[in-house]
Amino acid sequence: MNYKTNFNSTYANRGMGLENDINETNRYYNSYDIALIYKKPTPIRITKADYERMRIVDGFFESPSTLDYNGVYKGYYIEFDAKETKSKTSFTINNVHKHQIEYIRKALKQNGIIFLIVRFTSLGKDYVLKGEELLNFINTNERKSIPLSYFEQNCYPLEIKYAPRLDYLKVVDKLIEEQCSR
Amino acid sequence: MNYKTNFNSTYANRGMGLENDINETNRYYNSYDIALIYKKPTPIRITKADYERMRIVDGFFESPSTLDYNGVYKGYYIEFDAKETKSKTSFTINNVHKHQIEYIRKALKQNGIIFLIVRFTSLGKDYVLKGEELLNFINTNERKSIPLSYFEQNCYPLEIKYAPRLDYLKVVDKLIEEQCSR
Repeated sequence: MNYKTNFNSTYANRGMGLENDINETNRYYNSYDIALIYKKPTPIRITKADYERMRIVDGFFESPSTLDYNGVYKGYYIEFDAKETKSKTSFTINNVHKHQIEYIRKALKQNGIIFLIVRFTSLGKDYVLKGEELLNFINTNERKSIPLSYFEQNCYPLEIKYAPRLDYLKVVDKLIEEQCSR
Repeated sequence: MNYKTNFNSTYANRGMGLENDINETNRYYNSYDIALIYKKPTPIRITKADYERMRIVDGFFESPSTLDYNGVYKGYYIEFDAKETKSKTSFTINNVHKHQIEYIRKALKQNGIIFLIVRFTSLGKDYVLKGEELLNFINTNERKSIPLSYFEQNCYPLEIKYAPRLDYLKVVDKLIEEQCSR
């Protein structure tokens, strides 16, 4: 199978959000048996369903208490979230729910590979922010937002490519190395 | 926190399905920072939603293409499904969707710890069936069901306890050992 045939010029030019880039990348990883990483279904609470027709009649969205994507890569547990900001100068920590921060703390205790992919949409820059770095920033700073300079100095940049679009597992390899040498 | 105070005699006597036993066990693991394992939300396709009220107006259930539970334990990726059968003699392989079998194959390639917890409800017996064993049985047998004797000879039994109710991580420790010694 030639994966590239799935791409055409209009596709390449189409405006895609971070989530689409990640989903596309995960499909690539999946199809080449590189990793199995999925977006979790949106948590919803169903209040009324017609089970005979397998139909949902009423329900509501719940806010996520874990991160959006998880899966397995070389036996390692991977979990991350995708966050976009329009700001050119900083990433507001409020973008991460309190429950998610508590969850990151717990998942790191289990030696998961936990991170955020943060996109500065106005700058066209993507970074991998390790869970440890996020907690570290929160613990040692009064600020409610992480300045771009912090990303430049402490995070791994990601580049948009043809295929896979956002090859974040290259960075995950580095995170695994760091974890193993601790 | 004394976890046992959450249990009382009526609770202990209450009839609980396998899913409840697992959820209860996962809450125990979570509260003691032993592991972080969750049931995935049921995959649904929303066909109509009122996003202002964050309300789902119409949607339908989709059949799962992965396994129901996943998470992290000591850095290892854990994924499994819970299956109940009323049969006293065998477990019908049809209980596992085709997509799920394909998924198990792929997740094992990534060195995930993949298994089924199978409950013979009429016998009061629970077993951990490794993903490898399931695929192995399918590959080497014409039969469409796995006899109880196969479980007795090739699978790890689980026991219902007070807390955690179904301590399947004890078996996972053995699976990890086996994986590491391969």
